[in-house]
Amino acid sequence: MSHTIRDKQKLLARVRRIRGQVEAVERALEHEAGCDEVMHLIAATRGAISGLMAEVVEEHVRTHLVDVERHPDALNHEAVEQLLDVVRTYLK
Amino acid sequence: MSHTIRDKQKLLARVRRIRGQVEAVERALEHEAGCDEVMHLIAATRGAISGLMAEVVEEHVRTHLVDVERHPDALNHEAVEQLLDVVRTYLK
Amino acid sequence: MSHTIRDKQKLLARVRRIRGQVEAVERALEHEAGCDEVMHLIAATRGAISGLMAEVVEEHVRTHLVDVERHPDALNHEAVEQLLDVVRTYLK
Amino acid sequence: MSHTIRDKQKLLARVRRIRGQVEAVERALEHEAGCDEVMHLIAATRGAISGLMAEVVEEHVRTHLVDVERHPDALNHEAVEQLLDVVRTYLK
Repeated sequence: MSHTIRDKQKLLARVRRIRGQVEAVERALEHEAGCDEVMHLIAATRGAISGLMAEVVEEHVRTHLVDVERHPDALNHEAVEQLLDVVRTYLK
Repeated sequence: MSHTIRDKQKLLARVRRIRGQVEAVERALEHEAGCDEVMHLIAATRGAISGLMAEVVEEHVRTHLVDVERHPDALNHEAVEQLLDVVRTYLK
Repeated sequence: MSHTIRDKQKLLARVRRIRGQVEAVERALEHEAGCDEVMHLIAATRGAISGLMAEVVEEHVRTHLVDVERHPDALNHEAVEQLLDVVRTYLK
Repeated sequence: MSHTIRDKQKLLARVRRIRGQVEAVERALEHEAGCDEVMHLIAATRGAISGLMAEVVEEHVRTHLVDVERHPDALNHEAVEQLLDVVRTYLK
């Protein structure tokens, strides 16, 4: 089972919020909002997508790199945290 | 008149494609796609949003930094191109 | 006169601190530091270089886009601030 | 043994090239180069540091997440490649 399935509902809620943010950019353009507002809405959307990516990558690392049922003790959790620290820094 | 109004149709088409990409991420999660596919779809969406931002910033620079009707010769076009080079590099 | 000349001393001090950070990465590798420490030193160096870039871009926007002696009132300062907001966000 | 030790010579050569790039930025500022040249030199340095980070992260993932001597078959290499694909995309 894929981690994206296990966390399906949480990720779906997140991606639907992002769809709402994209629709807000669309409405701002339709209603001829100032470009300052448009740039802020786009920046917020990009931040939300980066956050979604960080979450999917984190689940991927925690559940796919090692088959925990077959190798329950193999994953070095400290090394995982160090890696995820870097991932979060670069996906902000 | 704001540049986001002038280029309204072009930007609207672009943001609607991005909405379609977000919906593709949503469908992939609903249909329990592998996380490799999900990560690629998210990365493509983020790239498209960065491209949209670069376009809005470019129009902002070309049309808002100087009121061209009042100061038709004030903007240094070479300096603008140097700036936009940097913006495009960082918004990839 | 170029803005990089005008702000020469401030930028030089900044780039010399960055050289010191790169030398710290070099020493950490030579002394066989753990990769956690190495990754943190590299991330800090990258952040400092992004900050230097943001500063050079800001000075470029403020002093090169318009020749202020010939066109003292042409630059729209509100639009400049909106642009620099975006630049700083993406150059973090 | 840490992966940063094992790959010590390769990484040291890389970080020394980066130090050379930072020194080139320093010289450009001292010799009052145009800001276009300065921005390009800074962008190249930032790219090189991102590449160094990607290499250290890659070695970290390959050698630290699982102790290969104790768990020789635990690491899922396909999942590792998928992860490193994302890391390289975001560390460009």
